[in-house]
Amino acid sequence: MEKGSLLYEGKAKKIFSTNLEDVVHVEYKDSATAFNGIKKAEITGKGRLNNQISSLIFMKLHEKGIPTHFIKQISDHEQLVKQMSIIPLEVVVRNIAAGSFSKTFGIEEGTRLKQTIVDLYLKSDELGDPLITEDRIEILDIAPREEVQEIKEQALKINDVLKNLFNQINIELIDFKLEFGKDGNGNILLADEISPDTCRLWDKDTNRKLDKDIFRRDLGNLLEAYEEILKRLGGVSICTK
Amino acid sequence: MEKGSLLYEGKAKKIFSTNLEDVVHVEYKDSATAFNGIKKAEITGKGRLNNQISSLIFMKLHEKGIPTHFIKQISDHEQLVKQMSIIPLEVVVRNIAAGSFSKTFGIEEGTRLKQTIVDLYLKSDELGDPLITEDRIEILDIAPREEVQEIKEQALKINDVLKNLFNQINIELIDFKLEFGKDGNGNILLADEISPDTCRLWDKDTNRKLDKDIFRRDLGNLLEAYEEILKRLGGVSICTK
Repeated sequence: MEKGSLLYEGKAKKIFSTNLEDVVHVEYKDSATAFNGIKKAEITGKGRLNNQISSLIFMKLHEKGIPTHFIKQISDHEQLVKQMSIIPLEVVVRNIAAGSFSKTFGIEEGTRLKQTIVDLYLKSDELGDPLITEDRIEILDIAPREEVQEIKEQALKINDVLKNLFNQINIELIDFKLEFGKDGNGNILLADEISPDTCRLWDKDTNRKLDKDIFRRDLGNLLEAYEEILKRLGGVSICTK
Repeated sequence: MEKGSLLYEGKAKKIFSTNLEDVVHVEYKDSATAFNGIKKAEITGKGRLNNQISSLIFMKLHEKGIPTHFIKQISDHEQLVKQMSIIPLEVVVRNIAAGSFSKTFGIEEGTRLKQTIVDLYLKSDELGDPLITEDRIEILDIAPREEVQEIKEQALKINDVLKNLFNQINIELIDFKLEFGKDGNGNILLADEISPDTCRLWDKDTNRKLDKDIFRRDLGNLLEAYEEILKRLGGVSICTK
């Protein structure tokens, strides 16, 4: 597989074309950003850890029948994925109150919700990723209502797989963010990454945070926490170049 | 009807008990407030105008079969309404983009939406009245999903009546806020007020704002605009004490 030209550079990843039309090459960066890019740092090793963790999790989701963009990991910080047209929604699954949800309603972080909830945000750095209702998604032509329903259902299935996975390694899955896209045939697939950058993960015994809140809130050594997640996931690098 | 003790004082109204258990006495104040109470002023005559306008509109809604809390206007600034348990949602019907909706999405004020939308906000001064999704309303036990559906349907029916009413007097109904409550039998009724404090009303020929945005944005004489609305509504005071 040949790596082609840079198609897009985001806050945490670079996307390159390949010699196959529907395959792109993803390179995970060592950048950490928070608060819509206001807080920034370079953390050497973060890209590698997120690539390895996300690859492991996407393979687990594939085993459980969840359709995703993931093809394979090709180096410690690179993977191949299907080219997708990204649906501009950040899909947040919440099992336990934390972050902006806690802040909005004055509910203590760590409070278990009586039911898992899927919150949708418009993916727009310019607009600050606002919370968006299904009615607003429809009238602004962001996505048809049936697609939003399918995405929410997929998100809840993914939650079941992830909760079980993290439970086995003594980690509480508080909440996480997903992105979905459509392939050339119009199929909706899980895209982006699933890593401690996109999940809140708390050790079940100590409630120690093992995710990007360490960076957001200056809580200590981020790399150590991400290494811990990879280790518990049984993470040997699965390089199949 | 005897006026009893003060039950509640809000930003724009005082509520008193009466000698009837399920009836309360509403006194409209001359206070203007905006931005969750940060901007404040006393505008003599505003209470009278809102009481008169809201009474006229609630009578019109009653004629059209919309169930409301309104009983009767009893003086220029007072009315009697059914005692209700208020459902803590601000129900905003939007025909044309304006205000926070325009700001959130960078859509120019005055842009007609492809479909009327009902936005729900949690009624909480303390939390700053955040936009709330139907899923969040359900898991936070704010109201059952069927009640939210009923409220949204009622809001759209009310929109049809109001659009027609304002159209007849050459005014564009941009958006408006409603509140609903439950009476002692669990019936959902329209509550609160409908006035230039709670609606955006633009003259159809000139786009001149005839609503509280005059106060929010320092656009001129608020009383003159409210008088204009009352006049166009054919507003003689309908005092039936």
